[in-house]
Amino acid sequence: MKALLAKWEKLCARSRALRFVDGNLRGIGQVMFQDNPLTGLFFLAAICWGSYAAGVPHVAVAGVLAIVVATLTANWLHADDAKLAAGLYGYNSILVGLAVATFLDPGPLLWVYVVLGAVASVAVTIGTVTVVKPWGWSALTYPFVITSWLLLLATYGFAGLTGTALPSAEAVAPYEPYEASPLDLADFVQGVYQSISQVFLKASGVAALLLLAGLAVNSLAAAAFALGGAILAVATAHLFGAESTLITGGLLGFSPVLTAIALGTVFYQPSLRVVAYTAVATIFTVIAQSALNAALSPFAIPALTAPFILVTWLFTLPSRYLDDTATASPDAP
Amino acid sequence: MKALLAKWEKLCARSRALRFVDGNLRGIGQVMFQDNPLTGLFFLAAICWGSYAAGVPHVAVAGVLAIVVATLTANWLHADDAKLAAGLYGYNSILVGLAVATFLDPGPLLWVYVVLGAVASVAVTIGTVTVVKPWGWSALTYPFVITSWLLLLATYGFAGLTGTALPSAEAVAPYEPYEASPLDLADFVQGVYQSISQVFLKASGVAALLLLAGLAVNSLAAAAFALGGAILAVATAHLFGAESTLITGGLLGFSPVLTAIALGTVFYQPSLRVVAYTAVATIFTVIAQSALNAALSPFAIPALTAPFILVTWLFTLPSRYLDDTATASPDAP
Amino acid sequence: MKALLAKWEKLCARSRALRFVDGNLRGIGQVMFQDNPLTGLFFLAAICWGSYAAGVPHVAVAGVLAIVVATLTANWLHADDAKLAAGLYGYNSILVGLAVATFLDPGPLLWVYVVLGAVASVAVTIGTVTVVKPWGWSALTYPFVITSWLLLLATYGFAGLTGTALPSAEAVAPYEPYEASPLDLADFVQGVYQSISQVFLKASGVAALLLLAGLAVNSLAAAAFALGGAILAVATAHLFGAESTLITGGLLGFSPVLTAIALGTVFYQPSLRVVAYTAVATIFTVIAQSALNAALSPFAIPALTAPFILVTWLFTLPSRYLDDTATASPDAP
Repeated sequence: MKALLAKWEKLCARSRALRFVDGNLRGIGQVMFQDNPLTGLFFLAAICWGSYAAGVPHVAVAGVLAIVVATLTANWLHADDAKLAAGLYGYNSILVGLAVATFLDPGPLLWVYVVLGAVASVAVTIGTVTVVKPWGWSALTYPFVITSWLLLLATYGFAGLTGTALPSAEAVAPYEPYEASPLDLADFVQGVYQSISQVFLKASGVAALLLLAGLAVNSLAAAAFALGGAILAVATAHLFGAESTLITGGLLGFSPVLTAIALGTVFYQPSLRVVAYTAVATIFTVIAQSALNAALSPFAIPALTAPFILVTWLFTLPSRYLDDTATASPDAP
Repeated sequence: MKALLAKWEKLCARSRALRFVDGNLRGIGQVMFQDNPLTGLFFLAAICWGSYAAGVPHVAVAGVLAIVVATLTANWLHADDAKLAAGLYGYNSILVGLAVATFLDPGPLLWVYVVLGAVASVAVTIGTVTVVKPWGWSALTYPFVITSWLLLLATYGFAGLTGTALPSAEAVAPYEPYEASPLDLADFVQGVYQSISQVFLKASGVAALLLLAGLAVNSLAAAAFALGGAILAVATAHLFGAESTLITGGLLGFSPVLTAIALGTVFYQPSLRVVAYTAVATIFTVIAQSALNAALSPFAIPALTAPFILVTWLFTLPSRYLDDTATASPDAP
Repeated sequence: MKALLAKWEKLCARSRALRFVDGNLRGIGQVMFQDNPLTGLFFLAAICWGSYAAGVPHVAVAGVLAIVVATLTANWLHADDAKLAAGLYGYNSILVGLAVATFLDPGPLLWVYVVLGAVASVAVTIGTVTVVKPWGWSALTYPFVITSWLLLLATYGFAGLTGTALPSAEAVAPYEPYEASPLDLADFVQGVYQSISQVFLKASGVAALLLLAGLAVNSLAAAAFALGGAILAVATAHLFGAESTLITGGLLGFSPVLTAIALGTVFYQPSLRVVAYTAVATIFTVIAQSALNAALSPFAIPALTAPFILVTWLFTLPSRYLDDTATASPDAP
């Protein structure tokens, strides 16, 4: 694998076109924090398969178009070369493209929306990076969420764009009918893999396997935390009595999966304390997902990965808090 | 009083268990900015009495459980020793425990919620402290509010947890029926003392007196600003024609009480200018409370102390603005 | 023109009363980023004419009262002299006064509201300036928006204040009936000028001309970007099929007008790249306006200039990104 990557990087060094492809593939990988073109290729395969299997191949096209437009925009804006090469201007745009094409009806204005959203996502990414810099945070998928929310909400004032899959506005109300069903294994497994594939807005077991494979080729720990996060999220949602279709559809699990990868492998070095802390954060992301689902129900838009961002930002402690060798913190929080 | 405290501190120095009790008592006192175990004891008495009198003794238990869990969590996270001893990791958690137990039905999952909320509140406290540090702000009760909102909102997606005292979702609409009732003294007094006791989510005159006593043993100024803030809030709410039950229930006054203590005694040194400025902020907190009550009505959750946080953060000027000796500011705002 | 201004400044240097007038006029000009008393005079004429023509002269009075109260408050708070002289503590307050008087019924409590809102807007301005300082941002009209939202939302809990022109709460729902009407020139022109006058909450062609004249006497570029922004906004809204009455009423264009002036002339030096970038931001502000209109419909309050603030803050890149001479950024974003 390493030899393959080394060869690819050699090829890229000689060709501007291949470097462009490389940057975009890395951008796709960065959705799950992986700076690796092979990971990106696996993820792209997951997106294509998931879109094809669901009968919406144009969704994959929208995602790819968006990341290409975003990379060109970042170039035009004289963005930082190293970050550009690592795909850090692109990972939000592909999600914008996928979300817009998933939730809205196809048509010429949809493509205007995809391009506009991709361009905007780059500006918003640079803006977000600037904003969160004082706290040492990553921008995470905040640019994707805020850009997509604005694009989707705006359609309620536009006759030219209609939602094919947007939720209807609903009043917040207690969720009543609940029979404590025994935890059926098939449902559990479906909930787990769809929690992984829904990171890219897909409901597909094949896509989930491709995503796990893509993670594994770059980081076994990332793949393990993704799977563990999904299992913990499904179990938590079941414990609290969440709606079955939400659980099995992976709709309460995709944010926790991202929280688990982020806190478990990216921002901290794994240790028993980090695993325990990440588990709490993952469980709390399920709470946050259910909470934001309720909070957004009057607005008729999906929560996207907002619960992940909220929890990960709030739970990203200075690392000394989780340092096993520290007995007392040198400076106050 | 001072001798008593000195003796207590001597005892604490020798016993780890007593230090643990001391930190928790100070945490309860910190809800109203008092770093004093005796104040915490008075406040704890107010909580217990208020819970007992309202027939919900488990609410007090939930509050105490939450702060104990939070202190243990902060220890486990190697939190700053001085802040831990001063109760600064605990004051949000006791409010989370009280709120969750006040608004939700009792049951095994409620206790899962209390523990989970307490653990999360520590992470969120550390996160919030980090976020607001560049501005020299205090975290105030923001960790309590955001954690409780997520926990409460999430129940609308969970069949296992139901709200016994959560408001129903309501459309925002003008409040019409109003007869300019003469300001009845008994109602006025009830509004004042419940504005104080509602800081701990209690509607009780005895609790209010215990809280005022607890403030007075540490800071007469704090007690005076609490009482003055409550009186000003009730008068303001009456002037604008707010709903009588909200006024007499103290539900428009508890945030202004906290604003008055915070701006009047904690962040500024009292002076005539500070008193005038604090009065404006206190009045504006009544506006903010009414505004957030309306804004949150579609979400079926209570505003908690969010109006206090919003106004106190926005109104916390660099102190030179209120310095009587300054004639012009040396540096631009 | 320059001779006239020089003479006026000479007169101001000798008279404290004239300096007070000067500061307030500059404050009115700062609503559109112009630090020029003559611009402020033109804008004031636009406000007065617009209010008179609409049969609501008290709205102009409220605006003027608010800015006078705010300037006095800033003085009392020992605010920075240079900023005070440039009107930077006043531009939010006049908008608060206009908004409160436009949306609420006249009456004694309205005037309490105007004065309270003006005082609060100064504190909130200082607070906002402090908050956004780490990012090198301007406070923009955020203090106006947050103060007005709180004041307007609060009326839903107050019988003493009722909304004459507040929207009713409405569920978010797709906007259906749309016949692709040919772009009628008269409607287009009306949409353009009302997009400009709605910056001061007016629907008036005369006011729009006065505002453009006021911009032109200080900065031809500002006038050009205002006009260009309005045209682009109306065209964009039409393309997406927005409601005709919103377009012709200028209600989707006033925020984009401010975005165009801000990004095109204030924060960057004009160049072809800047014009292109500003155009994208202006178009995206139309999206944001439509989005916030939907998002705020359950709350029964207007979006005011929030879309402008959101987009301008997010799109305010470090200027090196738009520097034509740069080929690669020296430091990471």
